[in-house]
Amino acid sequence: MGKYCFGIDVGGTSIKCGFFTAEGELLEKWEIPTRTENQGENILPDIAKSIEKKMEEKAISKEQVTGVGIGVPGPVNKNGEIPTAVNLNWGYKHISKEMEELTGLPSKAGNDANVAALGEAWKGGAAGCANVILATLGTGVGGGIIVDGKIVAGAHGAGGEIGHANVKHDETDSCNCGNKGCLEQMASATGIVRLAKKALAASDQESALRAAGDKLSAKKVFDAYKAGDALAAEIVEEFGDYLGGALATFATVVDPDVILIGGGVSRAGQPLVDVVEKYYKKYAFTPCKETPIRLAELGNDAGIYGSAKLVVE
Amino acid sequence: MGKYCFGIDVGGTSIKCGFFTAEGELLEKWEIPTRTENQGENILPDIAKSIEKKMEEKAISKEQVTGVGIGVPGPVNKNGEIPTAVNLNWGYKHISKEMEELTGLPSKAGNDANVAALGEAWKGGAAGCANVILATLGTGVGGGIIVDGKIVAGAHGAGGEIGHANVKHDETDSCNCGNKGCLEQMASATGIVRLAKKALAASDQESALRAAGDKLSAKKVFDAYKAGDALAAEIVEEFGDYLGGALATFATVVDPDVILIGGGVSRAGQPLVDVVEKYYKKYAFTPCKETPIRLAELGNDAGIYGSAKLVVE
Repeated sequence: MGKYCFGIDVGGTSIKCGFFTAEGELLEKWEIPTRTENQGENILPDIAKSIEKKMEEKAISKEQVTGVGIGVPGPVNKNGEIPTAVNLNWGYKHISKEMEELTGLPSKAGNDANVAALGEAWKGGAAGCANVILATLGTGVGGGIIVDGKIVAGAHGAGGEIGHANVKHDETDSCNCGNKGCLEQMASATGIVRLAKKALAASDQESALRAAGDKLSAKKVFDAYKAGDALAAEIVEEFGDYLGGALATFATVVDPDVILIGGGVSRAGQPLVDVVEKYYKKYAFTPCKETPIRLAELGNDAGIYGSAKLVVE
Repeated sequence: MGKYCFGIDVGGTSIKCGFFTAEGELLEKWEIPTRTENQGENILPDIAKSIEKKMEEKAISKEQVTGVGIGVPGPVNKNGEIPTAVNLNWGYKHISKEMEELTGLPSKAGNDANVAALGEAWKGGAAGCANVILATLGTGVGGGIIVDGKIVAGAHGAGGEIGHANVKHDETDSCNCGNKGCLEQMASATGIVRLAKKALAASDQESALRAAGDKLSAKKVFDAYKAGDALAAEIVEEFGDYLGGALATFATVVDPDVILIGGGVSRAGQPLVDVVEKYYKKYAFTPCKETPIRLAELGNDAGIYGSAKLVVE
């Protein structure tokens, strides 16, 4: 095994690149733009060129590099293939194979959210844990499941798509996925705003949130909650009930060592964890009630860490 | 690897034993009683003696045996340890280690429901599938999760305890586990009777089920359903909504190749699968909507198959 490896996290607008030791020390990170034009045909070649340049700069030979791991937004299967990646304008692509041909280095690929979970399990909030659930609360709700130190990719690359667990069978609003009642509609940044708007409309109760108008955001809801706003507390409790309950259900499937919460919404910090934990404990099966719930730690670097880990397993 | 192996399935009243080729052909099966007295101290020695006797009978040497796999009712961890097994009167036990000492053969142990899932994934309804969810609908609801061909044991041996997923946050009746709203309260044999009694009490609608009185059973509910009884249909639809919805949620976690339904309740057959599938498709995330739902095939032999598979992995 070479002394170094690369971890790449492909996003819709930029590609994060990390140069690591095989032990997981991040030596350098940088970004390049994601060129999605022409069916995103430049994306993998751009990455290959950037890696080549970095190896020249550092005077490193191919023999010294264990490989290149890549995380992409879409359903990557175990073999590193993807049927389509909407945000990259990709159709079917055998990512790891193309990358190997372009770089002459071993390559593996995974879904970005799954890879982030692997990164957190390697060097982040779940460091050293073999079994992890990561819930990423951003614009949507993503997730990653680690079992025995490995990503659960699933039969259709949909392992860890916990944002689309149905948590409210009688929901009438639609999720972006077409279903009604997905966790994402309750626990994402947009989902929390949705809950807040419903709560504001349903009562005349005074609340600091009423002044926010169109600028209502998940952050504003949590800020008001921390400031003692009663209506914000109702909204946050509702969020906690849905997310804590869903996590308890997921725990009956994989019984993790630790549950992590990441993504932009998780910047609300420990008060968010506390309310999720309260409901998690309420609904969790007895052997799993004390499973710790923690904040993810690697932030936007989780993807490059996890991608790097793909090739040093 | 030896040519033969043993698969043992320990129950509260009897122990099922299977003598297999390493390829998974069941050559012979038999049962011995489970002696639970004196903290169940005889259970493992009884198994060892029975195996020894079988090897003598067949004139087989230790070198010809790959090992002895054991499934037990309780939370067995990855190392083959169990903190306690109530039905066997066991406290802490390192099952695989004790078995190795008793037999001089390699041994592995797993939870009985998990091991049944492994058996079905080896030679049953999910033969050849790497990723499987098995829901076992008996007196309770058990389950087993297979990811990449291996059992998901979890951090506390509670992997696959899907019967205790909370599917109704506002349930007021208590589950045996102490929580309220577990899948087991809706989809087990006793759970279905519970739903039926509630439905009967809530309406004056005529139904063949009213004559059953204290003898109301899940089988009677499904028989009435198949005969066109309208109230039985309501009960079965409610059961399907809970179980199909829960399976759709579990699928967002592990995205299996196939979902199996086993246990006594599953003897209701294809009509049961059809109603579960109807609600599964309603709630499942798009990439997983076509995941097949099938009946388990090995019945009471799933445990000995899966235990045997533990030692030939």
